[in-house]
Amino acid sequence: MVQVRFLPGGQEVAVAAGTSILEAARLAGVEIFPGLCGGQGTCGKCQVRVVGPVSEPDPGELALLEHMADERRLACLTRVLGPEPVEVHLASRRVGNILLEGQGRPVALEPASRWQTIAVPPASLTEARADGTRLEEALGQQLAIPLPILQSLPGRIRQGPISVLTGYGHLWEIAADLGQKTYGVAVDLGTTTVAGYLWDLTNGVCLATSGVLNPQSMYAADVIGRIYYAQQEQDGLAQLTKAAQKAVNQLIGHLAEQAGIDRTEIVDVVMVGNTCMHHLFFGIDPYYLAQAPYVAAWQRSLTAPASEVDLQVYPQAQVTFLPNIAGFVGADTVGAMLAAELDIRPGTKLLVDLGTNGEIVLAAGDRFFACSTAAGPAFEGGQISCGMRADAGAIDHLRWEDGGLRYSVIGQGPPTGLCGSGLVDAIAMLLEIGALDASGRLLGPDEVPAAVRPHILSSPEGNQFTIVGDVRLTQKDVRQVQLAKGAISAGIAVLLGMAGIEAPDEVLLAGALGNNFHQDSARAIGLVPDIPALRGIGNAAGVGAQVALCSLTERRRAELLAARAKHVELATRADFNQAFMEAMFFPGNK
Amino acid sequence: MVQVRFLPGGQEVAVAAGTSILEAARLAGVEIFPGLCGGQGTCGKCQVRVVGPVSEPDPGELALLEHMADERRLACLTRVLGPEPVEVHLASRRVGNILLEGQGRPVALEPASRWQTIAVPPASLTEARADGTRLEEALGQQLAIPLPILQSLPGRIRQGPISVLTGYGHLWEIAADLGQKTYGVAVDLGTTTVAGYLWDLTNGVCLATSGVLNPQSMYAADVIGRIYYAQQEQDGLAQLTKAAQKAVNQLIGHLAEQAGIDRTEIVDVVMVGNTCMHHLFFGIDPYYLAQAPYVAAWQRSLTAPASEVDLQVYPQAQVTFLPNIAGFVGADTVGAMLAAELDIRPGTKLLVDLGTNGEIVLAAGDRFFACSTAAGPAFEGGQISCGMRADAGAIDHLRWEDGGLRYSVIGQGPPTGLCGSGLVDAIAMLLEIGALDASGRLLGPDEVPAAVRPHILSSPEGNQFTIVGDVRLTQKDVRQVQLAKGAISAGIAVLLGMAGIEAPDEVLLAGALGNNFHQDSARAIGLVPDIPALRGIGNAAGVGAQVALCSLTERRRAELLAARAKHVELATRADFNQAFMEAMFFPGNK
Repeated sequence: MVQVRFLPGGQEVAVAAGTSILEAARLAGVEIFPGLCGGQGTCGKCQVRVVGPVSEPDPGELALLEHMADERRLACLTRVLGPEPVEVHLASRRVGNILLEGQGRPVALEPASRWQTIAVPPASLTEARADGTRLEEALGQQLAIPLPILQSLPGRIRQGPISVLTGYGHLWEIAADLGQKTYGVAVDLGTTTVAGYLWDLTNGVCLATSGVLNPQSMYAADVIGRIYYAQQEQDGLAQLTKAAQKAVNQLIGHLAEQAGIDRTEIVDVVMVGNTCMHHLFFGIDPYYLAQAPYVAAWQRSLTAPASEVDLQVYPQAQVTFLPNIAGFVGADTVGAMLAAELDIRPGTKLLVDLGTNGEIVLAAGDRFFACSTAAGPAFEGGQISCGMRADAGAIDHLRWEDGGLRYSVIGQGPPTGLCGSGLVDAIAMLLEIGALDASGRLLGPDEVPAAVRPHILSSPEGNQFTIVGDVRLTQKDVRQVQLAKGAISAGIAVLLGMAGIEAPDEVLLAGALGNNFHQDSARAIGLVPDIPALRGIGNAAGVGAQVALCSLTERRRAELLAARAKHVELATRADFNQAFMEAMFFPGNK
Repeated sequence: MVQVRFLPGGQEVAVAAGTSILEAARLAGVEIFPGLCGGQGTCGKCQVRVVGPVSEPDPGELALLEHMADERRLACLTRVLGPEPVEVHLASRRVGNILLEGQGRPVALEPASRWQTIAVPPASLTEARADGTRLEEALGQQLAIPLPILQSLPGRIRQGPISVLTGYGHLWEIAADLGQKTYGVAVDLGTTTVAGYLWDLTNGVCLATSGVLNPQSMYAADVIGRIYYAQQEQDGLAQLTKAAQKAVNQLIGHLAEQAGIDRTEIVDVVMVGNTCMHHLFFGIDPYYLAQAPYVAAWQRSLTAPASEVDLQVYPQAQVTFLPNIAGFVGADTVGAMLAAELDIRPGTKLLVDLGTNGEIVLAAGDRFFACSTAAGPAFEGGQISCGMRADAGAIDHLRWEDGGLRYSVIGQGPPTGLCGSGLVDAIAMLLEIGALDASGRLLGPDEVPAAVRPHILSSPEGNQFTIVGDVRLTQKDVRQVQLAKGAISAGIAVLLGMAGIEAPDEVLLAGALGNNFHQDSARAIGLVPDIPALRGIGNAAGVGAQVALCSLTERRRAELLAARAKHVELATRADFNQAFMEAMFFPGNK
């Protein structure tokens, strides 16, 4: 076996010699974008940097890698040889082109802020245009120059070449030392966790990733709770805003420390998050988000000086939150849309982000339909008797095989509960083995095959199904799953109906949860349309934030995606309730 | 005689009944723009508001005044009748259309900042766009909304109609009280004096005008002296900047007091001044203005928050200095170009602003040529033995009539010197009576007619001509005038040569000085081309600042005028020296 280590995450896996790096990554749970060819070695997108004994590139791979830096290989074609360990760097450099970590995609580097070294041509009696005019010509753009910089501009440009930091239509700083670095941070401000990614914006390398818990959880667990806290408590909004800003500051501190840079070198911050997180981060009154018609205060991208949101980075850095679509479809969904390139035609694509609120976006040609459904926390382990997060002890996958129940547990210890992916597997298995009917009723001991019977317990509250030890599913648990999956698939049905489409060409499941589902199980319980093209796209919101951080073109694309999305308020749709009723049932005879 | 009083300046004059208001204004020294027809009653531009016994309008005037408010009349056609006094309001209201005081011109009111009262339509489940989106739709424009405003936006727009202050692409303030006023100030920051004009930007009325001395004069009299002071003294630039900003603050205080408004209601400030005043006001290093190739630090309009230039007005007010053309052709010249509408075709126009530096602009079709010449201070009374400013005691006009010298003196006292217009008259008269030859030599007692002889004094330094008492012109004085007028007319000759034009269709003389010259005298000494269409246009720079204050369209026009002007550096022109040598001579046989 050959030990393979993936960086920057540090995940390790032992695989047989001859295993491809793409396969090793799958086994290690590391996301590598398989590229447009799906791992066939023809698109050249799954580039990684490899250190250690691996197979020699064949002529086809060499052709795809032409002009690339040393050590760069295609993950799908490169096989580890051993016996020494192999190190695989996922986020590495390609000139002018960024390969995003994980479920990312290549992006041409086009940061909003950058240092440039220029020499302003001297004036002469025949070329006596103003200093600012010649400076702008050297920079190739017109800029707003803050007064303190303009005041000393004439002397500065006459001292030889200078470094100039520009961004957001401004000239922020002039320095004498050349070749300075600029760094940027992408933040995914989640209700529970805050994830951050530090990028070197001068060469498109991701230097560090980190996460912290969202300390707003101390005030209330979910967005509705926080909105009421902001409304009802003295300084409630200010407390929540301060907590969020503090968490982002803390995260930036971790990232800077990991990468060994100074946080004041971070010149740009791009954020995503749901609309409530957006409002709370900026201190915008969130009250009306929770009141019909659930309207956001702001839709377009919002850019504020870092100093106004108390972020300790470069003093003139700007913080940009990607656009919202509606009160319950936020910048995180827009980030996912951007990561998944929903605007690329042809074909219809359905993007589903599963969480307490399931956000659903249908892209059909020029048209985008977006909605959110109150799925509830079942798929995150909430309101399920043995439910839990995907932490140590959680059964994450299970199946019925060879007449018995097989399961896998996260970590080394005994099973203590079911996480979301385990729950979906469990329901699919119950349907498969005939312990659950299409209406969602758990069958009694007499109604099931003999092999299943030992798992069934009858109680006054209904039948139960024991998975292992105390880990079991009750009739009430099944009803929660029905409500959650009913909400999601009814939302999907309404959007498909509005677009006049029977089924999408492709379904994309965003979020760690979406990535961990067994796709067959998700189809089997009717959570997603029963089509073969089902793909987990991981933390797409975070990838979208990184894409937007690295490229102004992608930022404009996010703006267009959000502006073009037609938000569908399911509460106004008569067809939603009907679809919901129908979608509560599981596939099969009802 | 009928007493006529002009407002807002308060100038009074007694004229015979039947005198036109335009003529009365001329007699009172009040500038009224005579309009495109030159006072022929056909263009309708010289509108004033009149209170008191005046002639009835004839049908022609009525036609021109159609749709105008009551009391409005054409100054050229309206005759005062008496016996009661007549009050003439120069700057008065016309809905959406401003008639600027003095040598102004009508401008459609289009201020950069304004309060608007709006009601943001409520959201509904079927119209659930973001609060900001609905607000922008109500305002008809996209705006940058500062975070502190956005934070409370959701609550504010739900409380009923609101007043919104917008300007410079920003939403500055939301208030509950409706119908608020906005005021603006235009400032002409001269090397010696600072003139200010306070406008009500909600209805286009000029409420007050005022002037203060430029306290920078305490450090150095002229721009070159100030540039060296800024360079050589400890904190020299900071002192000069502070002095200029303090003067403008003081001026704004006077204006606000006169008009009875609060200075914090002033939301917009537009300034003009020469390039050195521009740099010193903003604290921009002026050193290189005085070094070849005499380059400005900044060309385009420069807008800074009032707080950054220490002006005590509305906290979010912006201060905009009109664009510069070159190191010695500044925003004051651009203001004059705007006031005079040099961009209106057809015909070629020559704009001359006489001062220590004579700025000359030639407009020929699409092309604008601009230059400055070091005319020296002769026309401002400097370097002339009996020279003085146009204050009490100055002889401002003189002529030879009926065999003797006639003169007029400013104020009631005895003559003590010659101001610029008196000097030009004196030289013209000397040429006329044969006391001065075309080469500039003052003739001796034996060479002049008998009637002139008593005025001639011979001395070892050359001949002198006594005007009255101790007020006399020396040979050296004449040489100074020759140098000054030579510089100006050589500059004119170079620009005409570049444009391939023999003579312009019209000559516009800007500045109080240009306005006070006897045009015939200016022609007679060869200061300006000998064409009939010669017109004084008064304080055109100040008018330009006011025009730009009142209208964004005019501000854009100023930008274009400045950008299109080709600056001609006379020092690089071989033809300048030749032209200068020739232009030193006076018209006539050389």
